[in-house]
Amino acid sequence: MLDFSKANEWKIIEINFDPSALGKVEANFCLGNGYLGLRSATEEQYRGETRDLLVAGTFDRFSEEEVTELPNAADVTNIELTLNGARFDLTQGTIQAYSRELNLQNGLLTREVEWTSPKGENFTLKFERMVSLKRLHTIAARVTITPDQDAVLMVQSGIDGRTTCDGSQHFTEGETRFYDKKYLQYTPRTIQSGITFVLDSTHKFTVNGAVMEPKSDINILRRRMFSKFALEVKAGQAVVLEKFSNVFTSRDKELAGYTREQLQAHALEQLKSDEKEGFDALLAEPAACWLDRVWMRAPITIDGPDFDQLAIRFAQYHMQLMTPAHDNRMNIGAKGLSGEGYKGHTFWDTEIFLLPYFIFNMPEVARSLEEYRYLSLPGAHAKAAHNGYEGAQFPWESAWLDDGEVTPEYMGTDIVTGQLIKVWSGFIEIHITADVAYGVWQYYMCTGDQDFMDRYGYELMLDCAQFWASRLEPGEDGKLHINDVVGPDEYKEHVDDNAFTNYLVWWSIGKAIEYSKMLQEEKPELYARLDEKLGLAALREKWAEQVDDIFLT
Amino acid sequence: MLDFSKANEWKIIEINFDPSALGKVEANFCLGNGYLGLRSATEEQYRGETRDLLVAGTFDRFSEEEVTELPNAADVTNIELTLNGARFDLTQGTIQAYSRELNLQNGLLTREVEWTSPKGENFTLKFERMVSLKRLHTIAARVTITPDQDAVLMVQSGIDGRTTCDGSQHFTEGETRFYDKKYLQYTPRTIQSGITFVLDSTHKFTVNGAVMEPKSDINILRRRMFSKFALEVKAGQAVVLEKFSNVFTSRDKELAGYTREQLQAHALEQLKSDEKEGFDALLAEPAACWLDRVWMRAPITIDGPDFDQLAIRFAQYHMQLMTPAHDNRMNIGAKGLSGEGYKGHTFWDTEIFLLPYFIFNMPEVARSLEEYRYLSLPGAHAKAAHNGYEGAQFPWESAWLDDGEVTPEYMGTDIVTGQLIKVWSGFIEIHITADVAYGVWQYYMCTGDQDFMDRYGYELMLDCAQFWASRLEPGEDGKLHINDVVGPDEYKEHVDDNAFTNYLVWWSIGKAIEYSKMLQEEKPELYARLDEKLGLAALREKWAEQVDDIFLT
Repeated sequence: MLDFSKANEWKIIEINFDPSALGKVEANFCLGNGYLGLRSATEEQYRGETRDLLVAGTFDRFSEEEVTELPNAADVTNIELTLNGARFDLTQGTIQAYSRELNLQNGLLTREVEWTSPKGENFTLKFERMVSLKRLHTIAARVTITPDQDAVLMVQSGIDGRTTCDGSQHFTEGETRFYDKKYLQYTPRTIQSGITFVLDSTHKFTVNGAVMEPKSDINILRRRMFSKFALEVKAGQAVVLEKFSNVFTSRDKELAGYTREQLQAHALEQLKSDEKEGFDALLAEPAACWLDRVWMRAPITIDGPDFDQLAIRFAQYHMQLMTPAHDNRMNIGAKGLSGEGYKGHTFWDTEIFLLPYFIFNMPEVARSLEEYRYLSLPGAHAKAAHNGYEGAQFPWESAWLDDGEVTPEYMGTDIVTGQLIKVWSGFIEIHITADVAYGVWQYYMCTGDQDFMDRYGYELMLDCAQFWASRLEPGEDGKLHINDVVGPDEYKEHVDDNAFTNYLVWWSIGKAIEYSKMLQEEKPELYARLDEKLGLAALREKWAEQVDDIFLT
Repeated sequence: MLDFSKANEWKIIEINFDPSALGKVEANFCLGNGYLGLRSATEEQYRGETRDLLVAGTFDRFSEEEVTELPNAADVTNIELTLNGARFDLTQGTIQAYSRELNLQNGLLTREVEWTSPKGENFTLKFERMVSLKRLHTIAARVTITPDQDAVLMVQSGIDGRTTCDGSQHFTEGETRFYDKKYLQYTPRTIQSGITFVLDSTHKFTVNGAVMEPKSDINILRRRMFSKFALEVKAGQAVVLEKFSNVFTSRDKELAGYTREQLQAHALEQLKSDEKEGFDALLAEPAACWLDRVWMRAPITIDGPDFDQLAIRFAQYHMQLMTPAHDNRMNIGAKGLSGEGYKGHTFWDTEIFLLPYFIFNMPEVARSLEEYRYLSLPGAHAKAAHNGYEGAQFPWESAWLDDGEVTPEYMGTDIVTGQLIKVWSGFIEIHITADVAYGVWQYYMCTGDQDFMDRYGYELMLDCAQFWASRLEPGEDGKLHINDVVGPDEYKEHVDDNAFTNYLVWWSIGKAIEYSKMLQEEKPELYARLDEKLGLAALREKWAEQVDDIFLT
């Protein structure tokens, strides 16, 4: 049960705990920063939850029979509390008061609970969690517990590497280390793609503002390590636990060339620095970042009759979360970084649905997304060649730059026949190649970024048009057809001459003719370079023959 | 809370449901038959449970950094019930009456619950489950639900392949199929060892004794498939769901050479046959089997002051479960087939703790276990050669016949130094090789099985003694020592001249001298064969020089 009242323009609020709707809240209240996405599973575990920590661009393939996907990294958010012998569990005892809210302004997730344990004892708990928009690797949590009576609190918290993608495990068992008896470090590696992950956690307790070191012991089991703390607290005393965590990987651009040991040392140093800052100081940073990068830069105001203002901000929040603006070797996954769906793959959604927002508000992000397409030309060439075509045929689903197509070939089983269902998108939903060209053009039209066009844009558009020239099929009617495709309406497969596809291809070839002429006249050096790559002279002749014969309804 | 009252000599009974002790009951109430072991997790899922289905001998290695282990196969026991909108969950509502019992006589697991849902409605539920001792592949369950008021029942049940070994996934995503809209089949494959598993399930409903087909639909998600059934029931009417399941693998001896399709067809045929029999008829078979194979054959009676009679039967029950008597390529795992601990590996426990029971009661089983040691000589030779010794050095932990040593090299991390802790057993707990020889001799002494000795026994004992001849170290005191070992007291590592080890080596070499002499005189053909393999003439000379110099305290 979410509160969408009009008065509330910055916060998504859950007003009742519903154990049957965990997934919905985990995804909607997701935290992240484009580098990492962290589903908002509660600190304590419940049956049916999905704990996901996804790091953009760290694709791994579980087996030859599966496609590459974003691996689900070890969990650092689980904190199990035992309050005077009763496990903190909202399906037990009585919830006296409850709210969970996500503050879109700064990305702070807060849960406040007044709970009567099955033993009849009252506890006030406040859980806060953040992923920093400034420090891309940092995850911080704060738990404040105030018992109504003297209490013994047991806290179990650490790093748990048993997480999988719905049962598929992408990581080695990993190295467990801890330093100074308080810094936990877990270093697994993705099995197929060989990416090293370093995850760290540490804990800091304060009572009435004074730091204290409770009795603790360390447990190391298969794929996980955690500390157990025991504290005695007086009635009405607030115990505050701050948990600082981070994740670094060997794919991080700024750490290129680091050895595993250097990566581990760097992560540990960052952890200590975050711990020193403390939760409040860490939280102040993303608040300023969000304001600067999003809310002041794209201050969309809607004075509607409903929760429109909240909804648009919710969309802006999630677009910020899901977009790896820090690295042009990566793009946006169809489910962002908020869960395992669509495996982190990039679809046409980038160009058609998401790019306009970035073009108009954060053009440098839009450029990075389009650079990803340029960098993934090797995969697009490979796909075209594999299918017997020329030029760049972009994959329907895209992951690594040189992967080419990563759409699963089969998904599920037909209820009636018992046979596997073929996923046709990867084979014949070909409009993506025209969508990419359209995205480039749209970016250029709105930004006038000539540098981008000269380096990447013209080549992308011409390379795409080369594919189309080889894909058009002459029909008995003297027209050129594009048969057997899936258009944007994915309920219809094996369609001939899909209107969206044919029009965009016609437009794409027209632009290619226009730009190749213009380049020859105005930018002879660039033209010469592209002509050598693509054979523009012959191509333009072909395009000119084709363009007016394309079947359009 | 278990009931161990003296009056109760056949049943282990849990009298209270304790969600914090799930694992204890899952393992103690485990079902199995030596082919498969099925932890007794409840039908409905709880946080903290461990659902394990292990099939003997199907070892797989998750990654180069881990050792081979028994993979945790897909779960067929999960059945989720929704009773008039309330999920059946014993941590919710009120338990009016409860008992869960394992009948050792026939391996029937029964749970009876009177439950008041959070809505205040009463339901009587009875859950029965069995693994057949006769049909090694069959798992059957029966759920009887009687509502006190008219009720809509929702049942979700199928096959779930998301199970892992503490996060390590050994299986491919697997093929999901269903036949005739009612037979579910899941066919994954172990990734490294390439063993195909076929798991099947089907459901049958009766109301007041009449078969009925409720409204149902099939769901296929990643790594799992299940049916959802909806039934309307009158107050006081008993609904009975029978769920028949099975598991077959490409390692099954009797199905050697089957293609995957043949394996699938065979499993499906068996499923239909089991379904036709029905739960009661299936249950009658293992009852007779248990009586015949265990309770009449090894009828141990203890008239003690405590629950001794139950305890000894409990031990007999579990020894039957854990022992793959059907296949001499397999042996007993240290935790049996009741969980992931010890990875299904075979230790010295077989010879020293378990073998005597089988020697005296079921000598053909004891022979099969010893044949496993003979068949795994290639691994023992490899281990000796790797360590620079001669003959057969048996692995401390053993899995595949040709694996050699599979003890993990490291386990956990030292709390003080933060360094990985080396597991020394695999390197220097060498008494296992003498234990194997001792097991052979003990079997022979008790059974007089001359055929076994001629085929396997003498060779095993002589091959082991060859290892010892190469392992003994001359000391400055003129004695032969065995330095730097772990003895049976595993709390002490790097011990010189461990008493148990040295005495058993001395005995082993003595027996080798005795038997090689005897063979030369009485069985010249066998002697010639073994002499050619082992070089007995030279060896006996060496043994004779060594035997009296071995350091003994």
